[in-house]
Amino acid sequence: MTIKKELYQAGAFKDFFAQGVRVENTLYIAGQVGSDADGNTPDDLEQQVTNAYQGVISVLKEFGATMDNVVDETWFVTDVAEVMAKVGPVFVARQKIYGKIPEVAQTLVGVTALVSPKYKVEIKCIAHL
Amino acid sequence: MTIKKELYQAGAFKDFFAQGVRVENTLYIAGQVGSDADGNTPDDLEQQVTNAYQGVISVLKEFGATMDNVVDETWFVTDVAEVMAKVGPVFVARQKIYGKIPEVAQTLVGVTALVSPKYKVEIKCIAHL
Amino acid sequence: MTIKKELYQAGAFKDFFAQGVRVENTLYIAGQVGSDADGNTPDDLEQQVTNAYQGVISVLKEFGATMDNVVDETWFVTDVAEVMAKVGPVFVARQKIYGKIPEVAQTLVGVTALVSPKYKVEIKCIAHL
Repeated sequence: MTIKKELYQAGAFKDFFAQGVRVENTLYIAGQVGSDADGNTPDDLEQQVTNAYQGVISVLKEFGATMDNVVDETWFVTDVAEVMAKVGPVFVARQKIYGKIPEVAQTLVGVTALVSPKYKVEIKCIAHL
Repeated sequence: MTIKKELYQAGAFKDFFAQGVRVENTLYIAGQVGSDADGNTPDDLEQQVTNAYQGVISVLKEFGATMDNVVDETWFVTDVAEVMAKVGPVFVARQKIYGKIPEVAQTLVGVTALVSPKYKVEIKCIAHL
Repeated sequence: MTIKKELYQAGAFKDFFAQGVRVENTLYIAGQVGSDADGNTPDDLEQQVTNAYQGVISVLKEFGATMDNVVDETWFVTDVAEVMAKVGPVFVARQKIYGKIPEVAQTLVGVTALVSPKYKVEIKCIAHL
């Protein structure tokens, strides 16, 4: 059974997985972490959240899409208590990324670790095109 | 690229995320936790599971759907050992919610924390309409 | 609202959830763990990864599909450090399963526990048919 996939393969892990896979009108985006485009990872949670969304945006852009196309997001965070303590500024940073009240379903859970000990957050999104 | 989203925004976090987002025939539902409609959270795991499903049902209802429409669920639980120790009664409670043998894919994993320390379970569902 | 679901219900938990649920062209696959078809669970991580994919393949097969149909995978692992320490051989084993550079989005996070303490990895996939 052959399907038509559109792939966006980039970055250090491009031989392991795609950053984005489109089938019909659904775009599955690989979890995006808190490092910036140069691979630097700030300690600051808000900045990591912004970086993760910049990663999401860069994948969306490859498919001609924007944050308006995101319909579902799952946040995996290493310290839920820190996120909740900073939930005001973190959600302000997130709303800046969306440019409005986010029209997206969300789930947020605490994990023991992400692929690097530097990462505090990984955001996995599904978009609709 | 503009898409047609149908949103259900409600509750204390309505400015942060939607409880449900429909695109075409897929409904993404935000993770639902163990508190009841009044915001009270029982300590009892079975009751938390029932409450989480009541949350799912309330979102489905907004889109004219029922538990029959759920196709995929992910359980994030804070104590896998407790869930497995009580797996009989927990799955009886769940089957009561579905009204039959659940016709749904399921994944269950242990997390370090949910958004409140009171929550023992968060259930994230995808439905098809 | 009635939808057309195709189900694959099998194994010890068939009264609790389906191993696969197809709606339209999307196939949701229940998280597959590191035990083999006989229920034995090796300690070796690479072997557990291979077993989990064999589980995925067995579900895909019921729907006439193959690994080429997988578009998104989430890995839940109990020891991220072990996975990263063995990431070379683990990804070689995975690429053998795919038969080529995987054309799939991926997310990998650490969890406190899976449904049995023997399991080191659970892989949740979405496929497109």
